Amino acid sequence: MIRVNRHFKKLQSSYLFYTIAKRVAAYQDANPAAKIIRLGIGDVTQPLPPACIEAFHNAIDEQGSPETFRGYGPSEGYAFLREVIAEKDFGSRGADIDPDEVFISDGSKCDCGNFQELFAADIAVAIPDPVYPVYLDTNVMAGRTGIFKDGRYQRVVYLPCTADNRFLPTIPDQLVDLIYLCSPNNPTGTVMDKESLEQWVSFARDNQALILFDAAYVDFIREESLPHSIFEIEGAHEVAVEFRSFSKMAGFTGMRCAYTVVPKACMARDENGDPISVRDLWMRRQSTKFNGVSYPVQRAAEAAFSEIGRRQVRELTDYYLENAKIIRMAMTECGFEAIGGKHSPYIWTKTGQDDWAFFDRLLEHASVVTTPGSGFGNSGVGFIRISAFNNRENVIEAMERIKQVNA
Amino acid sequence: MIRVNRHFKKLQSSYLFYTIAKRVAAYQDANPAAKIIRLGIGDVTQPLPPACIEAFHNAIDEQGSPETFRGYGPSEGYAFLREVIAEKDFGSRGADIDPDEVFISDGSKCDCGNFQELFAADIAVAIPDPVYPVYLDTNVMAGRTGIFKDGRYQRVVYLPCTADNRFLPTIPDQLVDLIYLCSPNNPTGTVMDKESLEQWVSFARDNQALILFDAAYVDFIREESLPHSIFEIEGAHEVAVEFRSFSKMAGFTGMRCAYTVVPKACMARDENGDPISVRDLWMRRQSTKFNGVSYPVQRAAEAAFSEIGRRQVRELTDYYLENAKIIRMAMTECGFEAIGGKHSPYIWTKTGQDDWAFFDRLLEHASVVTTPGSGFGNSGVGFIRISAFNNRENVIEAMERIKQVNA
Repeated sequence: MIRVNRHFKKLQSSYLFYTIAKRVAAYQDANPAAKIIRLGIGDVTQPLPPACIEAFHNAIDEQGSPETFRGYGPSEGYAFLREVIAEKDFGSRGADIDPDEVFISDGSKCDCGNFQELFAADIAVAIPDPVYPVYLDTNVMAGRTGIFKDGRYQRVVYLPCTADNRFLPTIPDQLVDLIYLCSPNNPTGTVMDKESLEQWVSFARDNQALILFDAAYVDFIREESLPHSIFEIEGAHEVAVEFRSFSKMAGFTGMRCAYTVVPKACMARDENGDPISVRDLWMRRQSTKFNGVSYPVQRAAEAAFSEIGRRQVRELTDYYLENAKIIRMAMTECGFEAIGGKHSPYIWTKTGQDDWAFFDRLLEHASVVTTPGSGFGNSGVGFIRISAFNNRENVIEAMERIKQVNA
Repeated sequence: MIRVNRHFKKLQSSYLFYTIAKRVAAYQDANPAAKIIRLGIGDVTQPLPPACIEAFHNAIDEQGSPETFRGYGPSEGYAFLREVIAEKDFGSRGADIDPDEVFISDGSKCDCGNFQELFAADIAVAIPDPVYPVYLDTNVMAGRTGIFKDGRYQRVVYLPCTADNRFLPTIPDQLVDLIYLCSPNNPTGTVMDKESLEQWVSFARDNQALILFDAAYVDFIREESLPHSIFEIEGAHEVAVEFRSFSKMAGFTGMRCAYTVVPKACMARDENGDPISVRDLWMRRQSTKFNGVSYPVQRAAEAAFSEIGRRQVRELTDYYLENAKIIRMAMTECGFEAIGGKHSPYIWTKTGQDDWAFFDRLLEHASVVTTPGSGFGNSGVGFIRISAFNNRENVIEAMERIKQVNA
């Protein structure tokens, strides 16, 4: 008898964004004339940078000719892309990363979700609250969380991020083995400073723990002194893995390209406490279950690092940051406390009421889609996340509508 | 302490094709002048069909304009692609498949590897021998196989495919829960006939087992009466899942597009024996850990189903089948028994000696790369797999060289 993975049924309702999409579809069905503005899922709206488009076309033409056609690429990605990443995203900031420590993938969601496969089923996992639901759900499926009771999975160590700690996760008072961090944070939009990251690296080193550092939104940081990579912190190479994405940086959500950095110095432990290379485990996992990213997509991603590509990418992120500023100011004007949105496309807004009710109110009275904070964890109750990913006109109109609803 | 998944160390050496690539690189380093011909990994060499190239370019242009730009797509794939698949690949052959039962992905390797996540860790798995290593290795990582001893994982039920059963897997004399089948087979090149598939569907129904049917090479079948899908078999919808790929059909190995069919009628069981929809579990898995396939790639895949696209795809597979015929005849001429290669791009050749030694001999004396049969399982010992995926000129030259070595 083919029995299912019993842990799946511990999952709480369906995936957050999937649920929201269904609610929005129901609203649109009932109100076909409503012009819905989506500031929910955090999906980019602006076209790809012209430099990427050009590189994409060129790579397609290569695929049409027998002399230049490429079949399977390396599962870890082409060297041309891994090399430019190591140099431009890390070397330029004093973080020493070798191209062989970079693994190209089709999405940070996939990598964040798959990485836990490398570890034992009974390790203790620490997850910020609120946070991107994928960290939690993939550990539920793997059987690491225990049952859901009183609003919490019993075996997860939650790291509440609230006004009390400036929305930055603080070191727990118990031992944990695998720690998820996300900065700039989704959903709160806050950025971990050097001191905070140093504390975590030190904790991980002292306890032989591993940090999975999700930096998918790093390209929105506008303060040079803030850390852009966990590998800018001394000692991090031994205890951290970093996830990055082209989705938000270069508008690649529909193109699918991301990467994960796993330093050769990074070690996990076998049951005797002997070190095992995390990079080797990930290489084995990826070469067995993954076949690399579409070649033209990798060429398009490479183009984002050219001089002109970098300028275009910067214009893109600047554009969304200006949207974020408009949202932050509007929400403040409505009397709501607005966190984030300075080095991040997300504005974390304290609603002063039930967040799903507030979500419904904005949907039904302003036709604006946001994301209820409780979908990101208990500490998100009463907040909504507003995304700056839309065009300027829509953002301005959405804020006008919200101001009217809250007038 | 961050402890590793202890099952990884049960894996036998590194992934087969990775090992071969390293041996070939070492040979090339030592013999820089050697013109190596690769008939090993089964990677296509011919350019993409022009219809796909054109669709690809058009989709890129859409991504460059704000009016037509698309961000995240559905994790299960766009309806335009799922609909044409349901109609052309299934409906046209009398297999009733709904577009909602089709899940687009970035590779059959990924889907074959990930699908086992849906099931309990202690189910009994049946795997043909020889077979594509991904089925086995992903179950090893998941802890389902027990330890490796005397050339076998102790808890795997192997299904030997040898001359005795015409290289078709036969029903085991013990109960199993999850059954991997692959037809046209990789590596033997044999195709399961209707009678054989009916026996397996009947077995799965009688025992509440599930069949994972890998049909990545279906487009090479040239005999209309042979089943092209397991869903042509009555009763299969309740007990089978099918994997298909654009890799070999349309030369997409470097583009990354595949799909998996999970009928709504397909059920697994919870611990009480109650039915659970496998499609719902897969949807939940995919929406949590996967973000869909690159939009332009999906448009290119769709173009393979247009009238002109189908003609071009047929020319591609015909081209490789002609190569297969040349290989089969050459190996027969050398006195080796050659199986497969009629409805498949693979020729399974009985070497009469140790297969790694034969592999090395062909590499060192003919500069031809093949795949040692033992890499696919114990029943592959003494065989090599020769792939028809190369251009005509190279295939002819490789066969001339092999004939000389074996003269």
